[in-house]
Amino acid sequence: MKILLNDISIIPVAGGTQIIEKGYVAIEDSLITDIGNGQIGTDGYDLVIDGKDKVVMPGLINTHTHAAMTLLRSYADDLPLMEWLETKIWPLESQLTAEDIYWGTKLAIVEMIKSGTTTFADMYFYMDEVARAVDESGVRACLARGMVGVGPESEKAFVESKDLVNKWHKQGDGRITIMLGPHAPYTCPPEYLKRVAAFAKELKTGIHIHVAETSGEVANTIKEYGKTPVELLKDAGLFENHVLAAHCVHLSDNDIAILAASGAGVAHNPESNMKLASGIAPVPKLLAAGIPVALGTDGASSNNNLDMIQEMRTCALLHKVNSMDPTVLPAYKALEMATVNGAETLGLGKEIGRLQKGYKADMIIINLEEAHQIPRYDIVANLVYAGQASDVDTVIINGKIVMENRIIRTLNEGEILKTAKKIATRLVN
Amino acid sequence: MKILLNDISIIPVAGGTQIIEKGYVAIEDSLITDIGNGQIGTDGYDLVIDGKDKVVMPGLINTHTHAAMTLLRSYADDLPLMEWLETKIWPLESQLTAEDIYWGTKLAIVEMIKSGTTTFADMYFYMDEVARAVDESGVRACLARGMVGVGPESEKAFVESKDLVNKWHKQGDGRITIMLGPHAPYTCPPEYLKRVAAFAKELKTGIHIHVAETSGEVANTIKEYGKTPVELLKDAGLFENHVLAAHCVHLSDNDIAILAASGAGVAHNPESNMKLASGIAPVPKLLAAGIPVALGTDGASSNNNLDMIQEMRTCALLHKVNSMDPTVLPAYKALEMATVNGAETLGLGKEIGRLQKGYKADMIIINLEEAHQIPRYDIVANLVYAGQASDVDTVIINGKIVMENRIIRTLNEGEILKTAKKIATRLVN
Repeated sequence: MKILLNDISIIPVAGGTQIIEKGYVAIEDSLITDIGNGQIGTDGYDLVIDGKDKVVMPGLINTHTHAAMTLLRSYADDLPLMEWLETKIWPLESQLTAEDIYWGTKLAIVEMIKSGTTTFADMYFYMDEVARAVDESGVRACLARGMVGVGPESEKAFVESKDLVNKWHKQGDGRITIMLGPHAPYTCPPEYLKRVAAFAKELKTGIHIHVAETSGEVANTIKEYGKTPVELLKDAGLFENHVLAAHCVHLSDNDIAILAASGAGVAHNPESNMKLASGIAPVPKLLAAGIPVALGTDGASSNNNLDMIQEMRTCALLHKVNSMDPTVLPAYKALEMATVNGAETLGLGKEIGRLQKGYKADMIIINLEEAHQIPRYDIVANLVYAGQASDVDTVIINGKIVMENRIIRTLNEGEILKTAKKIATRLVN
Repeated sequence: MKILLNDISIIPVAGGTQIIEKGYVAIEDSLITDIGNGQIGTDGYDLVIDGKDKVVMPGLINTHTHAAMTLLRSYADDLPLMEWLETKIWPLESQLTAEDIYWGTKLAIVEMIKSGTTTFADMYFYMDEVARAVDESGVRACLARGMVGVGPESEKAFVESKDLVNKWHKQGDGRITIMLGPHAPYTCPPEYLKRVAAFAKELKTGIHIHVAETSGEVANTIKEYGKTPVELLKDAGLFENHVLAAHCVHLSDNDIAILAASGAGVAHNPESNMKLASGIAPVPKLLAAGIPVALGTDGASSNNNLDMIQEMRTCALLHKVNSMDPTVLPAYKALEMATVNGAETLGLGKEIGRLQKGYKADMIIINLEEAHQIPRYDIVANLVYAGQASDVDTVIINGKIVMENRIIRTLNEGEILKTAKKIATRLVN
């Protein structure tokens, strides 16, 4: 299918901060085939989208979530972390069936598409169901089966991860990437992490892991092993693979140096870290060290939404006040974190995250004809500081129209909402 | 006009956290005449609103803004404070005409209505135009003419404030309240503030003032006068009137004690304080001292939106991470800050801010049939942590339908957007 976006403002996020005030984007099959200033002829296109009062930009990339946890949204809030996990989240989570995960993931995908996310990195369980939901919905995703290195599930996690790679890696028209998902240094002993590192090498996959989310985790790891979580990961050989390190809230200068040398990417989750009072990740320092820092929402039980426009805004605001420097993280940097940096942290930097000829046609069209988007002195600042999920008008992923004028074409939204409500009722009764 | 909301979930915010799962609200003219569980007969009502999959709650109260600064939205961002003010904001602001202020205020009102705000407290200039925009749009507002105590405008500010009281106080079907607006302790010398305090007593108005927004302001005030801004206000007699103190970021324990004893209310502006890197107000301490702390967005040039649902979320998340305590400011408390506390800080605590028999019929109906609002274990947590401006479906102010199914009835939205864009083009050319 050939699609042309004409007479549209463009934020390419392809190096520099250059905005194309009026331009065009041409799409053929899954790729961007042309992009430039002005308008071009519409002959030969199956669909021409008029871009008046609209801007097109790369789809947002949510680099850390547990999608099916939408089913636990607002089930328990405002509690101390361990009480929240032990008395609320884990007991409810243990009731989730494979079918629940499928529907919970679909609920998450509806929310993500409607707020402009085109790719997400997920770590959870029953990942075969997650892959099925991703396949059907038309989004792009990097999926990892959560691996916990103690207890009866620890070996099963290897088997299921391998099955997942065999069945789903690069499937769904290439939209699905499988990663390994060792949960965290505090749930995966060093010997287990060494096996994961070797396994990732064998399977040629990346690794998605929680790292240094709380100060308690860091203190315990130092107490038990005499090293920080990042040092422990290094010694286990994890960084010989491509690593997506989620959170990284509590890091030493040596940790930052290790991460910078390793080529790992960081998934920063400002709203989740704020809500759980985990702390504030040293994002300006990480960026200064050349580490690609991307954004994630974390699961909907600790956020409680999957809205990446909000996450950009919160990220920019939080680091300004935390550093007492209003210049420290400008709007455009937050936008890069949610797009090009996201792609890089997922190992997809050559395929997605920017609007550029030869890149995958993953893009979102934002409606600017709303009071909060006027005036338009700076459409990037407007998007980051004033934008709303509901401004996302149309979503294109892999060259296919997934949402048009806020109607999702690939999914039955009404059925998903209804089923999710039914599951929630069962869970608490 | 008699309106009935039937079969609707209700968050009354009228003491306790009791939610009415299915209930009704009856409105006659400007007042709530009945509210309760279950449904009641629809006979005799001019309009019956079906509340299925909806919740009704008090309209949000934005206790600190400069509405017409929507015209400066995203004109300049990510700059150091003084550079931002001196080289960008003030030069552009000085070009604003009375007519610009009228349209800029209307642009702000469109955005506020569409994000669920029913009352706002404004401090700016050409306030006669602001009052005209408020009158026409059907919203409720507390308006103060900004008074700067040095320069040629200092005397004019008294005259214009008195004119404003004579012309607009309690006008617009009682929706308009006039306050005095001495800008700040650093722009109003003590003798000027004493005159303002006496004038407020004479006119029987409240006072809206910026207080202790930056650490620099506090340091300078101490250096110049040997006292903190709050101590200075006390000594000037300001607190003998009802005071709405905006910001209050940098306070000593003695300042907090003074505020608590004074009966003053605080307008907390988390997003503006974050964006300008002013600091984090000690909100948990203020609340513990019994001070009514409400929420405000500040002007759109330092936020850059007027979305109070976002402000509730940011407030709750910010204070959790700042205190490293996830229990410190629960969702319901943020909701109280945006409603009942808002009313109290404006001196309107007996009229608005809650859904209760005899209170003004200022309320918003939220659509819950969206992915991010499902499941519905806790509709308050959903609203605060996952809610979006676009969830606001219908807005009733003073018993009149101002927005219905997201269409504003009282204003010509298209004309306002178009005019605001035209003004913005003129300002920068």
